[in-house]
Amino acid sequence: MKYPLNSRIIAIFEPSKKRVMEFELIKNTEGSRARAGVITTDHGKIETPIFMPVGTAGSVKGIHIRDLKEDIKAQIILGNTYHLYLRPGVDIIEKAGGLHKFNGWDKPILTDSGGYQVFSLGDIRKLTEEGARFQSHIDGSYHLFTPENVIDIQRTIGADIIMAFDECTPGDADYEYAKKSLELTQRWLDRCFTQFQNTQPKYGHSQSLFPIIQGNTFTDLRKAAVAHAKTFPADGFAIGGLSVGETEKEMYEMTEVVTAELPENKPRYLMGVGTPVNILESIDRGVDMFDCVMPTRNGRNGMLFTSEGTINIRNKRWENDHSPIDKNGTSFVDQYSKAYLRHLIISNEMLGAQIASQHNLAFYLWLVKTARQKITEGNFLSWKNEMIIKLKERL
Amino acid sequence: MKYPLNSRIIAIFEPSKKRVMEFELIKNTEGSRARAGVITTDHGKIETPIFMPVGTAGSVKGIHIRDLKEDIKAQIILGNTYHLYLRPGVDIIEKAGGLHKFNGWDKPILTDSGGYQVFSLGDIRKLTEEGARFQSHIDGSYHLFTPENVIDIQRTIGADIIMAFDECTPGDADYEYAKKSLELTQRWLDRCFTQFQNTQPKYGHSQSLFPIIQGNTFTDLRKAAVAHAKTFPADGFAIGGLSVGETEKEMYEMTEVVTAELPENKPRYLMGVGTPVNILESIDRGVDMFDCVMPTRNGRNGMLFTSEGTINIRNKRWENDHSPIDKNGTSFVDQYSKAYLRHLIISNEMLGAQIASQHNLAFYLWLVKTARQKITEGNFLSWKNEMIIKLKERL
Repeated sequence: MKYPLNSRIIAIFEPSKKRVMEFELIKNTEGSRARAGVITTDHGKIETPIFMPVGTAGSVKGIHIRDLKEDIKAQIILGNTYHLYLRPGVDIIEKAGGLHKFNGWDKPILTDSGGYQVFSLGDIRKLTEEGARFQSHIDGSYHLFTPENVIDIQRTIGADIIMAFDECTPGDADYEYAKKSLELTQRWLDRCFTQFQNTQPKYGHSQSLFPIIQGNTFTDLRKAAVAHAKTFPADGFAIGGLSVGETEKEMYEMTEVVTAELPENKPRYLMGVGTPVNILESIDRGVDMFDCVMPTRNGRNGMLFTSEGTINIRNKRWENDHSPIDKNGTSFVDQYSKAYLRHLIISNEMLGAQIASQHNLAFYLWLVKTARQKITEGNFLSWKNEMIIKLKERL
Repeated sequence: MKYPLNSRIIAIFEPSKKRVMEFELIKNTEGSRARAGVITTDHGKIETPIFMPVGTAGSVKGIHIRDLKEDIKAQIILGNTYHLYLRPGVDIIEKAGGLHKFNGWDKPILTDSGGYQVFSLGDIRKLTEEGARFQSHIDGSYHLFTPENVIDIQRTIGADIIMAFDECTPGDADYEYAKKSLELTQRWLDRCFTQFQNTQPKYGHSQSLFPIIQGNTFTDLRKAAVAHAKTFPADGFAIGGLSVGETEKEMYEMTEVVTAELPENKPRYLMGVGTPVNILESIDRGVDMFDCVMPTRNGRNGMLFTSEGTINIRNKRWENDHSPIDKNGTSFVDQYSKAYLRHLIISNEMLGAQIASQHNLAFYLWLVKTARQKITEGNFLSWKNEMIIKLKERL
């Protein structure tokens, strides 16, 4: 099978018949690109800026669906196409009636395209015009992801927001590599939209396809990527290839370059970012949506994010601190004591990982909710600057 | 320090000044020794027969305190003296104000004496008249448990019900070993009660000391053990050294021998037992209290106990079964589907272990609650016989 470079077909530019995800931009804030919005999907509304807990294999590690909703107050969660495709496999998810039915989460879901995992987890890979051939990290079996089958897989998983298949370059890639890679990603994007337009959602709710803006740390490539992506009838745009080894300064610069070029009336999703400070800085630069494994992964290792700074609960200084984990925390788990949590984490008790993960996710959701409130009140910038000083503290 | 064989002192037979745990025996059932009771402690009432979830290191693995109370409806949980003594250590628990304050569980707690763990987990041990010298399974450090310091440690942990220090013989021990071991356990029991009478609770609530009836599978030793234990002013009695390698028939026989000799007006606790069938059979033989790691440990491995039989969720037959885990289940986790739980367990996702553990504990608590109801209604035996047939099914 050959994919000519100029494979984009005109049909995709015709008005789509599918219902379109709505995005209402409530208010801008003075002296900042920060935005407060509401995304409406068939599984409900998402108030932006928003943080999306990562449910890699269809579960946010250590967290019951009930607690995601009622305690953490998550509005949308992520699933990873790569993981779900390998296990349990799309047939099982289809028989369940889609991921929402499979895991019992009835609010919006976003799936990534699997590109990032193929390049970071797949044992052996071969990248061609056709797609990416990779070996499962689970059983060594061989698989091929193409722009077409990744759209099909995401149709079957049934997320509300799905991602285009892309190549994610490492943070230190040189210009030539980044340019060639972006061109491939752009050709794949054409094929993704073609496949998307030629297929239908499977479970009666609409799906939106977001292009992923690549271009590494090169301003002209990023601008070219946006210009190309804007030619598609996308409901939103993702910014990829950041937080992958480049400096923090470069990450913020590229985010600024991209958000300046993206249409105002569509949500922007910065993939895989990041620390609470990264999130506030990126909200300031006009980003609406975030995901990151940091609150759960770092939580399992005993790192807690709080409004007063970060805590390494393994530190001996917490050994006899019998005060609550976070006196300002919004989760019920914040009532456990620091000394108890330290004991659980050091003893490798599951409950320790559960408590720390739940606390961190509740904190991330509190952070973006508060950012949103400050944006609508018009005092986001001063709040952000005060908050960042506290967030950088090590308690 | 020497401990003469005849170290029991007369003071312990004088009426104790401490408040005594109350036990109200509500109703017997025809043709069975099954009993329904209410134990009153300073941390609230326990309706018996009861199953006590095991919180080895101060946490029931994978379960939040809130869910233990509100979802599983546990009335009393266990802590392990051996584990808590080694980590976090009694100093930290004392500074917290006792285990109730440390882990946030404000209902009754029972601690074992550490004897069983010293013999099963301790790397090297030396058993003398004085006590048991052992090496920590965590860091190899050397420790000595004596009847006296085990009482002191349990005073500091602060459980409502504490256990005497004993030697637990393996199920296949010969008569001579079992007899010598029982004699040691009896001398240790004297010392435990002496220490208990000479010390006070630390946190303002009363504590009750239960002797542990040993004697392996030998009827005369078991009877001698009961006769000796009954000479102490105990609020209840534990039956130890069962479910440690002997046959099931021997376990039931020994339980019958012991409950026939124990006073009617005190609760009986069968330690470390067992399967749902074991529990119903032992309730029938006059046992009131149970603990076992089976619901959580087997749950983590994917085994579910239900009112229709046991499920090995790893089995391929559940791969596409999208029905609830247990349509009769009382826990919110029973609404997850079998196929989803199978996926989580096979993918080694924490949430799988959490769901299975929570389901199993809720099922065990449902089982003893229903047994209690049947006892008070007078139809325990017929219900038990029907239930056991179902419980033995493999679904």
